[in-house]
Amino acid sequence: METFALKSALDAVREENPLVHCITNYVTVNDCANALLACGASPIMSDEPADVEDITSICNALVLNIGTLNQRTIAGMHRAATRASALGHPVVFDPVGAGASTLRTKVATDLLREHSISVVRGNMSEVKALYASYVEAGSSTHTRGVDVASADIVDAHNMSAAVQFACTFAQVANVIVAITGPVDLVASATECYAVHNGSALCARITGAGCMLTCTMAAYIATSNSSASTLQRTLASVAAHGICGEIADARMKTQRANNPDFADGNGSYRTYFLDALFNLSGDALEQRANIERVK
Amino acid sequence: METFALKSALDAVREENPLVHCITNYVTVNDCANALLACGASPIMSDEPADVEDITSICNALVLNIGTLNQRTIAGMHRAATRASALGHPVVFDPVGAGASTLRTKVATDLLREHSISVVRGNMSEVKALYASYVEAGSSTHTRGVDVASADIVDAHNMSAAVQFACTFAQVANVIVAITGPVDLVASATECYAVHNGSALCARITGAGCMLTCTMAAYIATSNSSASTLQRTLASVAAHGICGEIADARMKTQRANNPDFADGNGSYRTYFLDALFNLSGDALEQRANIERVK
Amino acid sequence: METFALKSALDAVREENPLVHCITNYVTVNDCANALLACGASPIMSDEPADVEDITSICNALVLNIGTLNQRTIAGMHRAATRASALGHPVVFDPVGAGASTLRTKVATDLLREHSISVVRGNMSEVKALYASYVEAGSSTHTRGVDVASADIVDAHNMSAAVQFACTFAQVANVIVAITGPVDLVASATECYAVHNGSALCARITGAGCMLTCTMAAYIATSNSSASTLQRTLASVAAHGICGEIADARMKTQRANNPDFADGNGSYRTYFLDALFNLSGDALEQRANIERVK
Repeated sequence: METFALKSALDAVREENPLVHCITNYVTVNDCANALLACGASPIMSDEPADVEDITSICNALVLNIGTLNQRTIAGMHRAATRASALGHPVVFDPVGAGASTLRTKVATDLLREHSISVVRGNMSEVKALYASYVEAGSSTHTRGVDVASADIVDAHNMSAAVQFACTFAQVANVIVAITGPVDLVASATECYAVHNGSALCARITGAGCMLTCTMAAYIATSNSSASTLQRTLASVAAHGICGEIADARMKTQRANNPDFADGNGSYRTYFLDALFNLSGDALEQRANIERVK
Repeated sequence: METFALKSALDAVREENPLVHCITNYVTVNDCANALLACGASPIMSDEPADVEDITSICNALVLNIGTLNQRTIAGMHRAATRASALGHPVVFDPVGAGASTLRTKVATDLLREHSISVVRGNMSEVKALYASYVEAGSSTHTRGVDVASADIVDAHNMSAAVQFACTFAQVANVIVAITGPVDLVASATECYAVHNGSALCARITGAGCMLTCTMAAYIATSNSSASTLQRTLASVAAHGICGEIADARMKTQRANNPDFADGNGSYRTYFLDALFNLSGDALEQRANIERVK
Repeated sequence: METFALKSALDAVREENPLVHCITNYVTVNDCANALLACGASPIMSDEPADVEDITSICNALVLNIGTLNQRTIAGMHRAATRASALGHPVVFDPVGAGASTLRTKVATDLLREHSISVVRGNMSEVKALYASYVEAGSSTHTRGVDVASADIVDAHNMSAAVQFACTFAQVANVIVAITGPVDLVASATECYAVHNGSALCARITGAGCMLTCTMAAYIATSNSSASTLQRTLASVAAHGICGEIADARMKTQRANNPDFADGNGSYRTYFLDALFNLSGDALEQRANIERVK
């Protein structure tokens, strides 16, 4: 594994306190705001088309998440992305539920085609559906709502094909792509890394993916890190996975008491934010389990 | 008390992991999503009229909750309910604030009249207001916003009339009805059960009712349980009450420390989700306190 | 320092359980609802223009918060405020992000000009921007999104000017104003008080300001307190600060364990709600650190 500037990437967030404009779903928006505050950034939410241009102009990055899209917020996303692109702000895009509905697939494809997107973060089913639509091929994947289809989960058996797909997507769409799941892949057109950090419990809280999309934007938004966009994306993914592990371990520790009072996903959510809040750049460097796979 | 297939009903949720499409209010939507994940189901939120038909088609059940209704989401509810009915998906309806405004009462009545609703869950004030409008009678109830009016709380003195009302509502509207409060009533046209589980603290967190509406949909959505819709509804109500009791007991345990640091409704919300996460089918069977009252 | 009826103000909330109609942002709305329940009030959220008049009519106070405003909710705010004014209900206004966008500044100014607002609560950057627009002067402040600009933070060096500004704003806009930050100022045209309670960690959770705006409305909504509107506002601000201190101290206590499992802003949010839930009128009186500064 190469050495990345993981510590530099996180330290820059804490030092610069970037402002991140989020147009995101109302299900997990509170967790997204607290995740940004936890990692050292500040959130601003605005989705009204008449408001988004001013707001994105004073921010350092833009997040687009179509989890509960509607006609107004779709218009808001396009206006904000146009302005962010004009200002050279990084844009991170989360195609929640692409493939699960015609509208979501179309909106995701339009956003990817019409704007300068820095990073796409989704599960494999979403990214496959987005790819198929983007290149106007028939889709060969099935989504399970906003969850990944079981056949799409990256493991040892399909890793090689998944890596190839990630790099192809990155090349065709001219983005960095982060395909998250039990194993996370972060790829450019020419390089791909697997992140082996994480906890299965992250799938038992709502918003784990949405929070990562937001903190990723914070990592990419800083000006003082020596890390590349790919490395910063990777740093945010590893940080997320490590915090999932810490929350998991903390939950198990608490389980020693009365079994009636065992922790569940309520506590896990709290522990996850706490871990994001406390994670140091040094801990990120030491615990990151990143493998170069291409 | 008869023996119900309570364990079967919960086990089926954990085994089948049903997808539940929720059109619900933005106040408690995060708790609803985490409650569904806690009980073993998966949430999908979508309220855009152009999106809801596709989304509900891939789901196993639909929740309609008018807590923060607007013209767009009202249209989305009708479109989703029409599609869900066509597909034979169960629909659970939560008439939040029926009786508190002309719009809410009208929308609730329209939804109940125009679609095939499986279960209505509300407090007594809401269900009374909905009934009066449905049968075009003048309303004799008063709501207190989204809370039950004190005169409408079911207790020993008015139990008989409440049971009769619940069965009449179930018959007239052709639904199962769950009227929740200090004592919960679950009724069909011919049977009624009182659930004596629960904790007064549930009224001190937002979203307790909304979360129950969602988990109820998960229980009803499964295919492998031998329980009837009435029994599954009852299982979800008892599970909710038991988890309220567990959260209450856990909170009291934590209170032994510095009184400044006593738990309050912040912790109670977390403990409630944790209890939903950990509740087993066996515990549900053993702790359920259900009385047949008709 | 004069003696205020702080205890009376809080006790009245717990005794009367006022209903508070909130038109607020979807980011922190769940925390706002739980904060209202924690302090003894009840929340109702409704922003649909066709619904808000009925809802506000059955409530005791109205909160307007433009954190995620859109054209529909702007219309809803005006209709609700018109009705609330007609009924003599207190209205508390939170101009989130005034100065950060043309739309926000305009909407905030319109609301302040066109309706009878009881209290304005914001950070210094927001209130300065609102003032400049209200009196049609050029703005001399800079906002940092929804956060206060560092130059606007009230401290010993600029206290005198800040107090003068607060009273001028209160006089010109005919409101009580609460300008919150490390030191909070609560002013009428002729009096000003500084509240020295609080915790820096409140800036690391989303919604601290929004929650205060809501509990403030609950304090003002009661009928039985002998405290004036200024005193009730001050009581709510002090209560908020004290709860921040309690949450801070509780978090530090918990930090004694494994450093990996240290509390962060996830736990802080929970502790803050818990403290609001448990705060007594006596504790409020004893811990309040209020200084008359004009």
